[in-house]
Parts: sequence; C-alpha cells; structure tokens
Amino acid sequence: MSTAIKLGILGYGNLGKATELSIKANEDMELVAIFTRRNPSELKAQTDTKIVSVEELSNYKDKIDILILCGGSATDLPHQTPEFAKSFNVIDSFDTHARIPEHFSNVNKSAKETNHIALISCGWDPGLFSLNRLMADSFLPNGNSYTFWGKGVSQGHSDAIRRIKGVKNGVQYTVPNEESINRVRKGENPKLNTREKHLRECFVVAEEGANKEEIEKEIKNMKNYFDEYDTIVNFITEEELKKNHSKMPHGGFVLRSGKTGLNGENNEIIEYSLRLDSNPEFTASVLTAYARAVYKLKEKGDFGAKTVFDIPPALLSKKSQEELLKEML
Amino acid sequence: MSTAIKLGILGYGNLGKATELSIKANEDMELVAIFTRRNPSELKAQTDTKIVSVEELSNYKDKIDILILCGGSATDLPHQTPEFAKSFNVIDSFDTHARIPEHFSNVNKSAKETNHIALISCGWDPGLFSLNRLMADSFLPNGNSYTFWGKGVSQGHSDAIRRIKGVKNGVQYTVPNEESINRVRKGENPKLNTREKHLRECFVVAEEGANKEEIEKEIKNMKNYFDEYDTIVNFITEEELKKNHSKMPHGGFVLRSGKTGLNGENNEIIEYSLRLDSNPEFTASVLTAYARAVYKLKEKGDFGAKTVFDIPPALLSKKSQEELLKEML
Repeated sequence: MSTAIKLGILGYGNLGKATELSIKANEDMELVAIFTRRNPSELKAQTDTKIVSVEELSNYKDKIDILILCGGSATDLPHQTPEFAKSFNVIDSFDTHARIPEHFSNVNKSAKETNHIALISCGWDPGLFSLNRLMADSFLPNGNSYTFWGKGVSQGHSDAIRRIKGVKNGVQYTVPNEESINRVRKGENPKLNTREKHLRECFVVAEEGANKEEIEKEIKNMKNYFDEYDTIVNFITEEELKKNHSKMPHGGFVLRSGKTGLNGENNEIIEYSLRLDSNPEFTASVLTAYARAVYKLKEKGDFGAKTVFDIPPALLSKKSQEELLKEML
Repeated sequence: MSTAIKLGILGYGNLGKATELSIKANEDMELVAIFTRRNPSELKAQTDTKIVSVEELSNYKDKIDILILCGGSATDLPHQTPEFAKSFNVIDSFDTHARIPEHFSNVNKSAKETNHIALISCGWDPGLFSLNRLMADSFLPNGNSYTFWGKGVSQGHSDAIRRIKGVKNGVQYTVPNEESINRVRKGENPKLNTREKHLRECFVVAEEGANKEEIEKEIKNMKNYFDEYDTIVNFITEEELKKNHSKMPHGGFVLRSGKTGLNGENNEIIEYSLRLDSNPEFTASVLTAYARAVYKLKEKGDFGAKTVFDIPPALLSKKSQEELLKEML
C-alpha cells in the first residue's frame, strides 16, 4: 500500500459516508482519516477508519495527498475550499451554479499561491452532465441542448413540503417528462417550458386530523417550488414512507440534437443518462476517480483551481497508457 | 479570419466531404484546401474550396495548422499518419482496434521527432464510445460494460452480401437488441452472447431470375458475418433501395452497470447513446472539434501522439474559460 493515493474526507454526512465506501472500492487508494466538526467519539465509521476532529487536520499536511471536501454548498464549501486549498490538494462538489465563477476565483487564488490543485464542482451535475453539455455543444454547433433531471429526490422540495402545517413527513420526486424526452430523441428540437420538462410527485405523511385537501392545495400552489409544475400528491403512512421512500435515487438526461450536412438535412442526437439507486454514492464514485486524476496531475507539476473540463480523461483511470490503448480505445 | 484555425483535408471520400461541411459550420475555422490522390480537375468541392493534388501538400507546411486525414484504416492511414505527422499536426480516425497500439507507436515516433501533435483514432468508436467506456469504468470499478452498435449500416457486411451470386445490390443494418439493452438498464448485469446483442437486417436487390431462397440461405449461413446472428433478409427493388437505404445512419449505446454501497446493495447505470442520420457527418463533427483541441494543445507547446483520452474537454470548445464556468458547468 506504500504507493496508494492517500485520501482524507472532511465532513461525515451522506456524501462523506458514501465517499468512505467508494475509496474502499478502489485498491489504489487509502483512506487515511475522516475529519469532522462534531465530536469524533460520538461517531462511528462504516469501515475500519479513524474519525478525527477537524482541529487536528493541520497535523495531516504531509500524510494526505488529497482532501475530499464533503460539506454543503450553501455555507460550508464557500469558506472551506479556499481555506483548505492553502494546505492540501482538494476536491469539492460545489453545486450552486450561479456562484461557480466566484468560487473558482476564490479557490484559484489560494491554490496558486500555495502550489496546490483544487478541483471544484465535481460530481454529476455540475460534473459529468456539464462535461456532456460542453462536448455535445462542441461537436454539434447547430443544435439545441436539453437537461432533464430525475426520477430523483429533491431535498429542497422535500424540505418545503415538511414545513407545511399538518405535514409530519414527506418526500418529493422530480420526474422528467418522458414524452418530451422522446420528442427530443426524434429530432423535433422542441421549445419546452417548465411544465413540459418535469413533473413533481410528493409522498406526504399527514398529522392526525390534518386537512389533507388543504395540504394538497398548499403544495400545488407553492410559489417557485410547485406552482409552475404539474404536481401529484400522495398521502401515505409513516411506515410506507420509511419502507419505500428512504433511499436517495436520482439521475437524469443530457441531450443534444444537432443538424449537419450542406443544408442541415441530417439530424444527430447525443444522449447521456444516469439511473442512480444512490445519488450520494454515485457522486462519491465520481469524486474519488477525479481524486486519482488530481493526484496524477499534481505529479506532473500542475497547480491552481480546476474543473472537470480541465482533466484529460486518461487520468481518471487506474490503467496504464498501454492498457488504455489496448483495452479501452 | 486571420486568427481562424487553418485546416486541410486529405482524402475526398465520404469522410472528407463530411469534414468539409463540418469545418464550414465552425466560424473559428478556415478550410485552406482539400488534397486528393486523384486528378483534382475531375473533382468538384461542395463548398468554395480548392481541390489540390496531394503532390503539392509539401508546399502547404506553413499554411495549415492541422491536416485532417480522411483516408481508410485498412491501407491509407497506417502509412499516411506516420508520414504526414513529420510535416503537419494531424488527426486521423484509425479504427482497426487491434492495431491501435502499433499505429500509436509509429505515429508517436514521427510526431515526437518533428515536434508535431498527432491525434489518432478519433471519431465515435473509437473515440467518444471509448471515452465513455474509460470514464464509466473509472467511476464504477465494480461493474460491467456493454457496447451495442446500430441501428446502422455496416459497410463490411453490405459488401459481403453484394459478393453473393445473384445479388445485384444490398445494404445491411446492424440492429441492437432492445430487450438486451433494457435488461442492462434494469441492472440485471446479464452475460450476453453475440446473438443476444445484435441482429442483422438485410435489404437485397436480386438479379432477374435469381433464386431468392438460395440467396437468403447463403446470407444467413455466411461464416463470421451472419452465422452467429439472427438475420432478416428482405428482397426489395433497386428503386426502393435507392429511395430508402442510400443514407448512412448509425449509432449505438455504451452502458455501464455498477454496484456501490457497503455490500454492493445499490446499482448505478451510466448510458451514452448516439442516433445518427449520417455516420460520416457526425464522425467529421467530432474530428473538427478535436482539431480545435489539437490547435490549442499545440499552442501550449505539447507534442507527440495523442488519443481522445489525453485531451482536456475544455479544449474542444470555442468558448473561453470564463464562458465555460458561467454557461456550461
């Protein structure tokens, strides 16, 4: 294991736990420690890995090749990534699309000054979906791009349901409109409004005696969250919710439909899709592969902030150049 | 146009013609000339581009940034790519999978000695499908990969049909087995034999008085080409063939089905697919985007043989780093 890539995880929520498992699935990687802001003695790792207070992180500067930041985009990462890029090569999954340029700039400053690599906004969207949007747009300049999400759980919308009076618990699924996807696949290049792209399906546990009609009405009319969508509300028991809706599935589709030929007479469709039983576990799987790429990029002497757009795909693989040419091309 | 990427095309068959159109569709590119081994005066370009004898190519060393080689993999490219990599940055679509390592090595030698970049085996398979195989394999190490081709015209199988006695003309489509694809999509991780992956559908024009039963039997039993597949043979008229089967559609699917979680309890599916009205025009579209990447890589001072695995995706786009962060990530 002496040549293994040495990784650390900061943050032990859903993504941190999934990253722990993903690292264990890659024999060229070693998980040195999990770092937390909570009291480590109150936490237990899923694998044989020590959990350490974030206060001790500075003692690990020479023991970790790459630190995977598993905090949230709202309040953790905007501060953590620029801060820890001063002492470590880091990866994050910062997903507030509108703030990516600002985040990149902040992280780039820290990383460049201290000769580290910091890969931001890694995962599947932003991440693999972004990559497919960029590539498909480059191949088919005369065309339209479409992104559909789901079927998958939206935390934001689930939270919004749970804040309604009379609601005990609830889960919301974003569901892509299959008919619209098929129109894109056929090369129709449709203009699709919000309602035509996705519908929202809610599974709600009502408190005893609550007015279900009122709850349903309140959900369906909720501004910014549900009012522009067709929404289905199902009332179920707490047991059903636990049994059938406690996983975190997700996925989606990126499509590009473009014209080629002397007069645009031919249509070409590129489609990339994900069907994920576990959103955090797949996101973690992407993060660890990109951690491998960051490690190799660092060995070549590179530094600064990066995104998935900057990474030569060969670096993601544990295979050698010879194996890739022979087995993968 | 002074900062446009200056391109040349060598070979004016299906791929050369498609590349001519693709270059015209990208406003940051300029097609300097098309080079041919035939008599240029007997050829006419589809666009306002001069066609020049390959004998004159050496006069264009300083006039062309990248030469796109549009010859065939069987006899042209094994010689052309190493040869022209001595004088130009080049791209080819060499697709004889088994000979890729040897071709890479030959090309690398020429390119390194003369400080050029030579991107080999570019297109969609090898090319984009390879990229998806590599990436999906890196993200989901515990899983299975599947590649299905079609529905699309196979030149090799169409040629084989046309060599049969009594056959005037014919086209063969490789058709992926939709049921098998759906089994993969469901996470069944099936082991699929040749017959379960694809079927072959033939449209045959028989000569007058030919024995159609004999032709059908001969096709279905043809070793290496048809005997391991379920094959459908349709007899049609020459007019129908011209009208309905003269395009070159193709496409296919790359899937990875992988397990994640502490005990592999979750399944994750990655799917990449293409539905192409024109195989050569899409291949050309990929070649020109990678030509852009080669141009940028050259500007950074890189050289030697490359494959799609070595190219940071950002280089494919005409957008700036700022635009990519803002619009694409």
